[in-house]
Amino acid sequence: MDIGSTSQEKARFFAGACGRFKALPGQLMARIISIAKSIKKLGQDDPRRLIHSFKVGLALSLVSLLYYARPLYDGFGVAGMWAVLTVVVVFEFTVGGTLSKCLNRGFATFLAGGLGIGADYFASLFGKQGEPIVLGILVFVLAAAATFSRFFPRIKARYDYGVLIFILTFSLVAVSGYRVDELAVLAHQRLSTIIMGGATCMLISIFICPVWAGEDLHKAVASNLEKLATYLAGFGDVYFQSCKDEGSGVGSKDGNGKSFLHQGYKSILNSKNSEESLANFARWEPGHGRFPLRYPWKHYLKIGALARQCAYQIEAINGCINSDIQASEEFKSKIEGPCSRMSSECGKALKALATSMKTMTDPSSANPHVENSKAAMKDLKFALKASSMENADFLAIVPVATVGSVLVEITKCIQKISEAVHELSQRAHFSKTVEPTVSPEKPQQQQQLLHRGIVRPVPDTSDDGNSDDVVITIEEITTDSPEKGKPDQHRVLKPGQV
Amino acid sequence: MDIGSTSQEKARFFAGACGRFKALPGQLMARIISIAKSIKKLGQDDPRRLIHSFKVGLALSLVSLLYYARPLYDGFGVAGMWAVLTVVVVFEFTVGGTLSKCLNRGFATFLAGGLGIGADYFASLFGKQGEPIVLGILVFVLAAAATFSRFFPRIKARYDYGVLIFILTFSLVAVSGYRVDELAVLAHQRLSTIIMGGATCMLISIFICPVWAGEDLHKAVASNLEKLATYLAGFGDVYFQSCKDEGSGVGSKDGNGKSFLHQGYKSILNSKNSEESLANFARWEPGHGRFPLRYPWKHYLKIGALARQCAYQIEAINGCINSDIQASEEFKSKIEGPCSRMSSECGKALKALATSMKTMTDPSSANPHVENSKAAMKDLKFALKASSMENADFLAIVPVATVGSVLVEITKCIQKISEAVHELSQRAHFSKTVEPTVSPEKPQQQQQLLHRGIVRPVPDTSDDGNSDDVVITIEEITTDSPEKGKPDQHRVLKPGQV
Repeated sequence: MDIGSTSQEKARFFAGACGRFKALPGQLMARIISIAKSIKKLGQDDPRRLIHSFKVGLALSLVSLLYYARPLYDGFGVAGMWAVLTVVVVFEFTVGGTLSKCLNRGFATFLAGGLGIGADYFASLFGKQGEPIVLGILVFVLAAAATFSRFFPRIKARYDYGVLIFILTFSLVAVSGYRVDELAVLAHQRLSTIIMGGATCMLISIFICPVWAGEDLHKAVASNLEKLATYLAGFGDVYFQSCKDEGSGVGSKDGNGKSFLHQGYKSILNSKNSEESLANFARWEPGHGRFPLRYPWKHYLKIGALARQCAYQIEAINGCINSDIQASEEFKSKIEGPCSRMSSECGKALKALATSMKTMTDPSSANPHVENSKAAMKDLKFALKASSMENADFLAIVPVATVGSVLVEITKCIQKISEAVHELSQRAHFSKTVEPTVSPEKPQQQQQLLHRGIVRPVPDTSDDGNSDDVVITIEEITTDSPEKGKPDQHRVLKPGQV
Repeated sequence: MDIGSTSQEKARFFAGACGRFKALPGQLMARIISIAKSIKKLGQDDPRRLIHSFKVGLALSLVSLLYYARPLYDGFGVAGMWAVLTVVVVFEFTVGGTLSKCLNRGFATFLAGGLGIGADYFASLFGKQGEPIVLGILVFVLAAAATFSRFFPRIKARYDYGVLIFILTFSLVAVSGYRVDELAVLAHQRLSTIIMGGATCMLISIFICPVWAGEDLHKAVASNLEKLATYLAGFGDVYFQSCKDEGSGVGSKDGNGKSFLHQGYKSILNSKNSEESLANFARWEPGHGRFPLRYPWKHYLKIGALARQCAYQIEAINGCINSDIQASEEFKSKIEGPCSRMSSECGKALKALATSMKTMTDPSSANPHVENSKAAMKDLKFALKASSMENADFLAIVPVATVGSVLVEITKCIQKISEAVHELSQRAHFSKTVEPTVSPEKPQQQQQLLHRGIVRPVPDTSDDGNSDDVVITIEEITTDSPEKGKPDQHRVLKPGQV
């Protein structure tokens, strides 16, 4: 019985082990397939990655010729190794990155080589006993000083790699100079192989499917504006629509609409570092395509910072949307008009600014939308001033008021973004292909202006001193969906408020 | 006359040039002094930078011994150069950074060296003609594949340097193998010098004034919580005080108070990258000081993300504070109590959490403050529900309501932070030195609870069906400033609301 149970256990154990063993190829296959899928996805997301890999392989193969071809080898000797080393270390994804590293490396090697030879000569004055001591002290002092200089933010940003190579080359030249007698030959060989490696990298990165850091920065900032635009264009509809749905019991808090809103803008929150490094690389790049040599790359950082500011506000508004406090439908309906207009006009303005950046044309097509959003901001103020509620439930009003208030901040932020893009368009000489804004009679221009107000004075019918009142009839003309464009209610405003 | 004027001009020009020339040493001196000052400041801000520079100098000088000492030189030859190279490239500011690079470099060199020798052997099978072609193809394929693997986020984060060294070593060994016959000797020499350089770096970085990435991360996250705490602790006083000052004509919108609030938290907004790289380095570090080997470093990223979330909300509140809309004093005074309490209690909770992290003690001392902030949040809801205003000016109410609403979001965020710190304290086994929370009779515990409510039923005096009402007397006990602690107004609440 005992033996039987043990043998049963054994059998079970072996069956289990066999099963696991049989499952192993399946698991392995599944793992391989999942890895293959992620490789495919990585390549599809940005095919330039695949091309970059091939470029690195090509550069290395070319540099290897230094070894294979005997005439070249006899000229350079083992120093050909430095060309391989240079290619591996210097080749970056973007042209700017590669150029920055190449130039840093070349200049630092030249400077450190010269200093190293000088240090060798200086140390040799102290005789056989003193030489290693003097050289040791020099290496210590220069390495420490150069390492410390890397903590300066400006040096860190632009010359970090150069300082590293400076320390490396100086130490190597100074130290090995003590042994190798033909120092000048060595330095010359090394420098020329480094230049060959660097030149190979530069030529391949510039002429074979170049990845320009400047263009990436340009696209990244424009696409950030687009992400904000997408959110804001959808916001009004989703926020005010969902409350109507809730009233009719159709929609829900976590419905598709709101979760749809969450997507894009979150990536903007942490975009600072990548934008800064791209702007830094872009400054090393020669003129290319639409971007001349002294293109104002730094100005993109300003626009990027404003876009982040806007994204912070959206992050705050998201909290309010998902708040568990029931919002007041009455108050919501009071401010729905101006708020929806503000967010949709802000969205349109950002879209226009992003398009103007992408096409590098004059951004004045965004102006009407910016003006409209400003007008909607004023409308919101009027609506708030004019509205009165009996038995106002402040608890229910607060979330709605917050959405309105943050929308006002977003609108202000978008004005600043518009100004920044206009400044960029002037500095970077964007082409003026759009009709000038001075001719408002043109149909396109008219369509973009959302409101046309007809102001007619109210005749003196009442005697209560309100004879200054005027009636403003506001018609809403929407360009994209005419069936939605129902006229606003007529409102009575005092002239001082206009 | 003409000549006179020219000579005068000449004289003026020379005088100007002389002046500029005389000013030059002065300008140079001023420039040198300003550079010296910024160097001094850089060193004073973090003296570890100075120490780090000396450590790098020391490591280089030690490794140079490989060259200077003849017995060692005879053993290693020119390969000693690799030790110098390793030290320069591998020595990072933090121990984790240095270890990560050393281990990456060592392992990658070992692997690539082996593969390189294998590739050489494989290529030699194809004869003198085929060898360079096969080697070229192998270098191309492996370099391209390894370069592509660097785009994977997980590899990029942890093994980027290793992959770089892998490509480098493989190319060097495979290519130079075609020329140098004693490949095994070369590989052995290179590996042993790299190990010597790496070991020198590791020993110096660990044993001479070590800079632990983990400790830096620990301090950075705790100090971020403190920055938020400082802002929130000051917020209530400044916001509600300044409006009173404005009423009496003393304070101003841009007064010292509000600009004082702006300082600290802004650095949190962009803290993601530095926190992630510190956490990444920290995982390579051995146990040190208060942090054992498998310390939950990843959990700090969670707390950091929540702190950023809170900073975004504060950024939004800052916009509201500086809004140009005149806030309603009446409405402000209605919600002042709960809002001030919310922000000050949140501040105290964060302060307690930061202290608990710094001292690595049980964070339950923050619990009463978190509870109080929750209670204040409920109080705000009651205050909003209960309050009614005649002729409510919604325009003036909106900014105040927004501040309240965002404070509610901040309070929720701080609850999450508290939960995350509690989770950390459990995972990292923080010591329990604080009195347990189960004995609320202790005086300290009582002092920390801000409210003591006395619930007494109201006798049935009215016949209007409100006989369920109870009167809750709330006394405010402040621990830090007893003169401020005036009792709240008595309020009548329905039991369902408590």
